[in-house]
Amino acid sequence: MALSAAAANEAASAGALERLVDATRPGMERVNAMILDRARSHVELVPEIARYLIDAGGKRLRPMLTIASSLLFGRLNGSEVNFAAAVEFLHNATLLHDDVVDESSMRRGRAAARMKWGNQASVLVGDFLLGQAFMMMVETGSIPALEVISKAATVIAEGEVLQLSKTRDLTATAEDYNDVIRAKTAMLFEAATEVGAMAGGADAAGRRAMREYGRELGYAFQLVDDVLDFRGEAGTLGKNTGDDLREGKMTLPIITTLGVASPAERELIVSVLGNARTGAADIAAVVAVLDRHGALDRTLEQASTHARHAREALKSLPPSEMKALLGDVAEFTVMRAY
Amino acid sequence: MALSAAAANEAASAGALERLVDATRPGMERVNAMILDRARSHVELVPEIARYLIDAGGKRLRPMLTIASSLLFGRLNGSEVNFAAAVEFLHNATLLHDDVVDESSMRRGRAAARMKWGNQASVLVGDFLLGQAFMMMVETGSIPALEVISKAATVIAEGEVLQLSKTRDLTATAEDYNDVIRAKTAMLFEAATEVGAMAGGADAAGRRAMREYGRELGYAFQLVDDVLDFRGEAGTLGKNTGDDLREGKMTLPIITTLGVASPAERELIVSVLGNARTGAADIAAVVAVLDRHGALDRTLEQASTHARHAREALKSLPPSEMKALLGDVAEFTVMRAY
Repeated sequence: MALSAAAANEAASAGALERLVDATRPGMERVNAMILDRARSHVELVPEIARYLIDAGGKRLRPMLTIASSLLFGRLNGSEVNFAAAVEFLHNATLLHDDVVDESSMRRGRAAARMKWGNQASVLVGDFLLGQAFMMMVETGSIPALEVISKAATVIAEGEVLQLSKTRDLTATAEDYNDVIRAKTAMLFEAATEVGAMAGGADAAGRRAMREYGRELGYAFQLVDDVLDFRGEAGTLGKNTGDDLREGKMTLPIITTLGVASPAERELIVSVLGNARTGAADIAAVVAVLDRHGALDRTLEQASTHARHAREALKSLPPSEMKALLGDVAEFTVMRAY
Repeated sequence: MALSAAAANEAASAGALERLVDATRPGMERVNAMILDRARSHVELVPEIARYLIDAGGKRLRPMLTIASSLLFGRLNGSEVNFAAAVEFLHNATLLHDDVVDESSMRRGRAAARMKWGNQASVLVGDFLLGQAFMMMVETGSIPALEVISKAATVIAEGEVLQLSKTRDLTATAEDYNDVIRAKTAMLFEAATEVGAMAGGADAAGRRAMREYGRELGYAFQLVDDVLDFRGEAGTLGKNTGDDLREGKMTLPIITTLGVASPAERELIVSVLGNARTGAADIAAVVAVLDRHGALDRTLEQASTHARHAREALKSLPPSEMKALLGDVAEFTVMRAY
C-alpha cells in the first residue's frame, strides 16, 4: 500500500516538468518573446552572444516557476511576464560570469560563450543582461519586486565570492556549503517564486509561503546538481562529468567524504581537486570513494528532505491543481537524479 | 581685456574642483558613510576588495556631481545620498570589470584589484557592487530614478562591448569613437546629474538641462582622458602612459592620425597598437607622430567645445552660485590637460 503510493508519487513527479510546461505555456510564450526582444542591441556582438546562450535554451525552469507562482494566485496584471524574463536574464548573466570565473569550457551542451568570444565579451554581455533585467523590472513600477530582485542579485554575487574563497579549501564545512548554495542558487529560486506570487496578487502569507517553497526547491535543485556532476551520464547536464571536482569546488559529497576517508582516499581526492587536467579514470576512482562512503546517496536524501519542505511550504494555500503540480515539481527535482 | 577675461576664467576653473568639494561637503560626508556601509558583507573577500578600490579614492567626481545637481534645485529629501552612492558603486563595478576586460595592471595609482585577487574575484565583486547600487536606488522608492540608472547600466555595458569589438580595428571612425564614449562615459555623467536634479525636485526642463550638462561634461572628460593617456606624466591618471595604445583602443587621436599619416608613421602606430609589451620609447615615438599632425591638440579643442556646451546647457536655469560653479567645473575638466 505504502509502496504503491510511493510508485504513484514517482509517476506523478516524473511527468511534473511536462505538466509545468503545459500549465505555463501561454505566459511563457510572452516571456520568450520578451527575452528575444530584450536581447537586441545596436551593438552587434551583444545579441550574438546573448542569443547563443539563450537559444541553447535550458529548461527555463526559473521563469516557469515565476509564471506558475503568479497563476497560483491568479490576479494577473502582466507584470509576471516582465518578472519572469528578468529572472531568466539575471540567471543568464550569472551563467556568463560563472563560466569566466570557473574557466568552464562547456555550457548547456555546447562550447561556453567565453570559448567562442573570450572572457571579456562574456563579462560585458553579462553586465548588459543584468542591466536589461533591471529595466524590465522597472517597467512594472513595482518597488517591492525590485527590492526582491536587487537583493537576490547582491546575495548571488556574495555566494559566488564565498564559493571562490572556499575553492580547494580542505577545511570547508557542510555549513559553508549550505551558505554557498543558499546564496548562489536558492536565492534566485526564492526570488523567482516570490515575485511570481506578488504579480499574482498574493497577500503577505502567500508571499512568505512561495518564498519558502522557492528556497527549499533551490536547495534541492543544487544538491541534485552537485550529485549529477559525479553521477550524470556525459551530457545530461550539458557539461562534463567531474567539472566541479576539476574546478576545486567543495561540494557536499566531497566535504562529507573528506571527514571520514582513509589517508589513501583523502590523498586521491586532494590530488584531483582543482586539477583541470584530471581524466575520466581518476574521476571514476573518486566517485567509487564517494560511493563507498555513501556520500552521493546521503546528499540525495538531503535533497529529498528539502523537496519535502518545499511541498510542505504550500500547505497553508488553498487546494488547487497548480498547488499540487508545484508539489510534484519539487519531487521531480530530486527524481531526475535517478 | 579679452585676454584678462580668459585669464580670470582660467583661474576660476583651476579652483573649480576644490570649490565643488567644499560646496558638496556635507552631502558627500553622508555619501561616503553610505559607501563604506554598503561595501560591507559577511563574505570577507567582498569588503576587502571593494574597500581596496574605494579607499584608493579617486576624485568621486560623479557622486559630487549628483549632490551638486540636487543642491542646484534644493528641495532635498535625502534620496540624493542614495543616488550619489549608487552612481559611485555603478562606476566602481564598471572599473573592476573594465580592468579584467583590458587586462590592466594599474588603477588609481596602485595595482589593479585583479592583480591582487585575480580576475574571478574582480568580476564577482563588481557584480556585488552593481547589486548594491540597485538596492540603494530601490530604497528611495523612485521608479523614475531607477529607470535612469538601469538604462545607464545597460548602455555602459553596450559601450564597453562596442569598444571591445573595435579593438585594433584600423577602419574605426571618429563616429565609432563618439558612440563608444557616449555610452561608456557620457551616459554615467548624464545619469549622475539627472538623478541629482530629480532628488532636488527639478521640473522636466531642469532634468533635461542637467542631463545635457552631464552628457557634455562626460564627453569632455573622456576626450581629455584619452589625451592624458599619451601626454600625462607618469602617475597623473594613476595608470601607465600609453596604456590605451597597448590595449589596442581606437581613441580619437589615433583614428584621426591614421587618416593622414605617412606609410611609415602608419606602420609605427600599427606595430604598437595592441602590443602589451610596447616600451616608453615607442610610446614617445607615437606621441611625436600624433603631435606632428596636431591630433592631441585637436582632440582637446573638441573637449573644449563639449565643455562649452555643458556650460550652455545650464543657461535656462536661474542664476546661482552653484550654477556658476558647475560651469567652471566643465572648464576645469579640460584645463586639467594643460
